[in-house]
Amino acid sequence: MDFQNQLRIEQKIVNDYLNRMMDIKEAPKSIVDGMSYSLLAGGKRIRPVLANAICKALGGDSEEILPFACSIECIHTYSLIHDDLPSMDNDDYRRGKLTNHRVFGEAHAILAGDGLLNLAFETMIETVKKYNYKPKFIMAMEEICRASGVRGMIGGQIIDIESEGKKIEIETLYKMHEKKTGALIEASCIAGCVISERFEMIDIVKDYSKNLGIAFQIVDDILDYTGTLEKLGKNVGVDAANKKSTFVSLLGLEESQKLAEQYTENALKRAEYIDKSGFITSLTQYLLNRES
Amino acid sequence: MDFQNQLRIEQKIVNDYLNRMMDIKEAPKSIVDGMSYSLLAGGKRIRPVLANAICKALGGDSEEILPFACSIECIHTYSLIHDDLPSMDNDDYRRGKLTNHRVFGEAHAILAGDGLLNLAFETMIETVKKYNYKPKFIMAMEEICRASGVRGMIGGQIIDIESEGKKIEIETLYKMHEKKTGALIEASCIAGCVISERFEMIDIVKDYSKNLGIAFQIVDDILDYTGTLEKLGKNVGVDAANKKSTFVSLLGLEESQKLAEQYTENALKRAEYIDKSGFITSLTQYLLNRES
Repeated sequence: MDFQNQLRIEQKIVNDYLNRMMDIKEAPKSIVDGMSYSLLAGGKRIRPVLANAICKALGGDSEEILPFACSIECIHTYSLIHDDLPSMDNDDYRRGKLTNHRVFGEAHAILAGDGLLNLAFETMIETVKKYNYKPKFIMAMEEICRASGVRGMIGGQIIDIESEGKKIEIETLYKMHEKKTGALIEASCIAGCVISERFEMIDIVKDYSKNLGIAFQIVDDILDYTGTLEKLGKNVGVDAANKKSTFVSLLGLEESQKLAEQYTENALKRAEYIDKSGFITSLTQYLLNRES
Repeated sequence: MDFQNQLRIEQKIVNDYLNRMMDIKEAPKSIVDGMSYSLLAGGKRIRPVLANAICKALGGDSEEILPFACSIECIHTYSLIHDDLPSMDNDDYRRGKLTNHRVFGEAHAILAGDGLLNLAFETMIETVKKYNYKPKFIMAMEEICRASGVRGMIGGQIIDIESEGKKIEIETLYKMHEKKTGALIEASCIAGCVISERFEMIDIVKDYSKNLGIAFQIVDDILDYTGTLEKLGKNVGVDAANKKSTFVSLLGLEESQKLAEQYTENALKRAEYIDKSGFITSLTQYLLNRES
């Protein structure tokens, strides 16, 4: 099967599960609607697809990893809803649609974000229980939880807002992205590895995900500079408008492209060891060459 | 020992642990400062004190329950930070100090709230691991997680903001408080019971906490009507200013006081069975008669 078809199948598996997650009884309809609006708005589903792919490539059970993979997508989506708020990036478009607060108002958007973070943990804890409290499931949840907290993603977001309007050092930019984007991408890959029980592969999976995470972010910065609202589904030039330092603003477009290729190369070397089928290799290349 | 002294000791145990929780390395100092500002601002620590008291009264280990009790306080505090935001209740004072967003700005306040919710789960997962993945710890975490989500606390907050400016039915008011305040108080008590492994006591503990939760909220409404900023540490008359329905606005002051006494009576009957030492009985009476 060609890569694009395979990717669509993997995304569909994720989307179907996310749909089931949003079938929430006993909660006010308006909050479920608000959460669904952003969670089911599409998107590339990179993190859950990665978690599933690594777990399967290492011989793990795809049913076991799926709830964790989709919980990560909930966490990612909550962070986007909060990032887009007027007091943060003040964005109007996301995934080709109006941002959550632009449709539901700020109060509902904040609560929809809170609800998605909480739902991620509800889902993971239910899964731990379903599989009889087996430690590997708690280990996967621990990795994800640590990555999404103030030592990880939230910490990165703080560095981001505090760097606005300042010219920061390239080291700070790396650190910010390592936390803000890298931590959750890394946790996705580690969760896949942990659920597969191939613990001897943890270091190479970490190495893969660290390189992929940086490449991913550099490409993101390039797309914000060169892309269009039509292709990206979100406003472009936002970084420049918000006076944010990016790889492009600090290193220039050409150097950034070279750097993205270099980190992708590093990731590809590890991908070969992790996945003989070639899917993760193709996914890694696809992320470098994406247009949105 | 008299009740007030004992309560102070219990509060100190909680505060000491919360202080240790906020000793976070590897996170930007500003976010840790923002979280600490609200988490360590004092407050009655009702929820963690209740969790600890019930666990101990039922013969449980106080070291085992403490991390869960304090994680509940983190969740409670995050909900206050988000509730106080300009797009929600737009409050200026909380626990006798300026609200989080008034000191740190909205963006930081939103992230401090997110960080506290995440920290609660980080702490609980670490504790699960520390005690070798024993199921009761995951069960306690599950109760807390469900109570704080859209089926519980967040759902109640949605009903609250959607009821603003409307005259709601008394049934809706009950449902709102059952979720917004009641769910987490109930989870505190259930967590204490679960960690004590006295599973046969679950129903009576639930009954106790349900009655206590309602009494607690009615008293809260009364204090918002009769209290002062000085005593409460937060602005009073906020409910009326925000055109919120309360027990006082729907039933009048006298009827509300009677109702609070009645629910407290119900709770007291259960408290006797749970705690022979009398501490929970005194705590229940104290919550009815509090002035803040």
